[in-house]
Amino acid sequence: MGLIVQKYGGTSVRDLPRIRAVAERVAAVRKAGHDLVVVVSAMAGETSRLLGLAEELAPAPNRRECDALVATGEQVTAALLAIALAELGCPAMSLLGHQIRIATDSAFGRARIKSIDAGRVTSALAEGRVVVVAGFQGVDVADNITTLGRGGSDTSAVAVAAALKAECCEIFTDVEGVFTSDPRICPGARKIARISYDEMLELASLGTKVLQIRSVEFAKRYRVPVHVRSSFSDAPGTWVVEEESSMEEVEVSGVASDREAKVTVHRVPDQPGLAAAIFGPIADAHIVVDMIIQNVGADGMTDMTFTVPRGDLQEALRIVRATASRIGAGQVDAASEVAKVSIVGLGMRNHAGVAAKMFRTLAEHRINIQMISTSEIKISIVIDAKFEELAVRALAEALVGRGEESV
Amino acid sequence: MGLIVQKYGGTSVRDLPRIRAVAERVAAVRKAGHDLVVVVSAMAGETSRLLGLAEELAPAPNRRECDALVATGEQVTAALLAIALAELGCPAMSLLGHQIRIATDSAFGRARIKSIDAGRVTSALAEGRVVVVAGFQGVDVADNITTLGRGGSDTSAVAVAAALKAECCEIFTDVEGVFTSDPRICPGARKIARISYDEMLELASLGTKVLQIRSVEFAKRYRVPVHVRSSFSDAPGTWVVEEESSMEEVEVSGVASDREAKVTVHRVPDQPGLAAAIFGPIADAHIVVDMIIQNVGADGMTDMTFTVPRGDLQEALRIVRATASRIGAGQVDAASEVAKVSIVGLGMRNHAGVAAKMFRTLAEHRINIQMISTSEIKISIVIDAKFEELAVRALAEALVGRGEESV
Repeated sequence: MGLIVQKYGGTSVRDLPRIRAVAERVAAVRKAGHDLVVVVSAMAGETSRLLGLAEELAPAPNRRECDALVATGEQVTAALLAIALAELGCPAMSLLGHQIRIATDSAFGRARIKSIDAGRVTSALAEGRVVVVAGFQGVDVADNITTLGRGGSDTSAVAVAAALKAECCEIFTDVEGVFTSDPRICPGARKIARISYDEMLELASLGTKVLQIRSVEFAKRYRVPVHVRSSFSDAPGTWVVEEESSMEEVEVSGVASDREAKVTVHRVPDQPGLAAAIFGPIADAHIVVDMIIQNVGADGMTDMTFTVPRGDLQEALRIVRATASRIGAGQVDAASEVAKVSIVGLGMRNHAGVAAKMFRTLAEHRINIQMISTSEIKISIVIDAKFEELAVRALAEALVGRGEESV
Repeated sequence: MGLIVQKYGGTSVRDLPRIRAVAERVAAVRKAGHDLVVVVSAMAGETSRLLGLAEELAPAPNRRECDALVATGEQVTAALLAIALAELGCPAMSLLGHQIRIATDSAFGRARIKSIDAGRVTSALAEGRVVVVAGFQGVDVADNITTLGRGGSDTSAVAVAAALKAECCEIFTDVEGVFTSDPRICPGARKIARISYDEMLELASLGTKVLQIRSVEFAKRYRVPVHVRSSFSDAPGTWVVEEESSMEEVEVSGVASDREAKVTVHRVPDQPGLAAAIFGPIADAHIVVDMIIQNVGADGMTDMTFTVPRGDLQEALRIVRATASRIGAGQVDAASEVAKVSIVGLGMRNHAGVAAKMFRTLAEHRINIQMISTSEIKISIVIDAKFEELAVRALAEALVGRGEESV
């Protein structure tokens, strides 16, 4: 039997009883004959607690030191899980980012993994040990501790699985898998059994917070099969895998939605370089812009609309207003109450009319579309936030076709 | 101005206001022109909290994992102090055991420092930063995290001071320095201004818990002047330094005491190898034996008495009784209510009559002496524990001669 990498998130290790339960699960898999690497997050709430301490000392605490600070959360969980495993008679060893050289760049708080030295892990596995890896953390070239950003332990797990050429990477979480739409909104939402990396990337970037998007990118690049499943049951969850021919038949595999804020710059002179002039200063402020829409202009002017996270709206507005007056654009409007709703599916590439069906469904529910943006396997629209749930439910029912039980 | 190493213990960094206060103190010293390395302990109570978690999972948790676990305590303090310093406009950088290669052996929980790579520290100092070092921790040759045992941050600080050839090492603690006797017992106890390494070694090993004994050994070997002082005042504390001629004049520089338990093995056959037979199995059980007394025997038999920490008495008795029956010794007795009281002073080497004066003082107070042991600069006696405070007070008054204010 081959090597499996498992990852347990913060809620799965939130207290000692849960850690003991994870240890029992791991020991059982080990006993069944698998080699096992377990990647763990900090106990739920710990990262926020530590950042809270830092922010009490400084409103904008030094980022390098914050990473050294919060990395202790995963270190604690890893050591405790190794202790619990040893107590069950399952030899285990915790390993930290610096001990297995999870080499990253130096972008503290959102570092990207560059390489992993599998040697230390494989030799511990060869000694018959379960290896418990502290997720979320790495080291840069100067041996500074770095962290990978929210959800980074997913990426740690997939990266370790890739480096070790594991059979698969199991992501244990507090949901049962990836759903066609949010089960809290659509009671008829269905768990997806298999989904392609590309579809998952679109869903992950669309607010389905089951997997960190970079972990999916990693999985796709290194072809690591990822199994997203519940840590509270043995039921199979969702496999995220390479595209399979049967997947093509499904037009729409999922509906996702996210609250955003919208900014429109009116009457932008329609000249080369002006998009860069608008979005450069926003990027410099580390504000992540999501959708950008620019329609063809008239009389040498165009309107430019984009969405940002709600928390960044005021800062983005301040920046854009300054830019607008500098480049001679017109008024800048904003709306903080919009939602982006997207449908994703490999089948869109070959099936005509999905967009038309989407727009017709929304029209039937009298939902006005403010913006539209499409990619090969995704269609996103922006609507008034008050219609978010209605739109998701209606689209799931009409397009994913599993609405029998929906309200 | 030269380089100073400062160490702040757990009570000095117990919460955010204290950490901020330490940052202010450090920033002021830096502003005065000193290069500065600050070694920190975990916030008071944190090490015990973490060990408590481990012990809830396993009665005897894996030692390697415990070290990885508790090392997070110092990591958190170091990062927080660096954040607080940066906030005061004082550039700082935390460095962990593995980042400055505090190389130790692999004795988890009580590792000994073998070397320190000063390069990373000196280059950070050269950039004008205060370096905050996580105390108590190191790494072994396989890059496993190790810890140095209770009080280990003292040793970290002195070792760093030695490696960097610092001017001195300041140990900030919750007492004002080293006292001639325990101020809680003797209100007339006097703070010692200067004391030699050897005297401090004797006092440290005798229960004066101001400095970890290994830190004093390190300071002596590398001739690091150590300044033990209060983190709550600017008053000078006690300098622990090389022996100075004026010190010789003081017969007794301090009185110390400690509660212990006593074990006597009667009628041990007076043959080579029997002491080894008795103490070998005790050492194998990691029980630290303190005093050992064996008097000249009669009729081929001798009595052997030794002291151990009270918590280890039952285990020691079990082992010794097994040994006694194997080697044909007689009865084994124990007393758990004894105290060891010691007087220490360089002057004893040249001044006759100190021991006689000590014994006479005890006799005047009708305190019976159960055991006596002496070294070049120390005399220890074991007495009934109920006389401990009386003996310390009487000896401090009679010998250290500062008893005017004592009760």
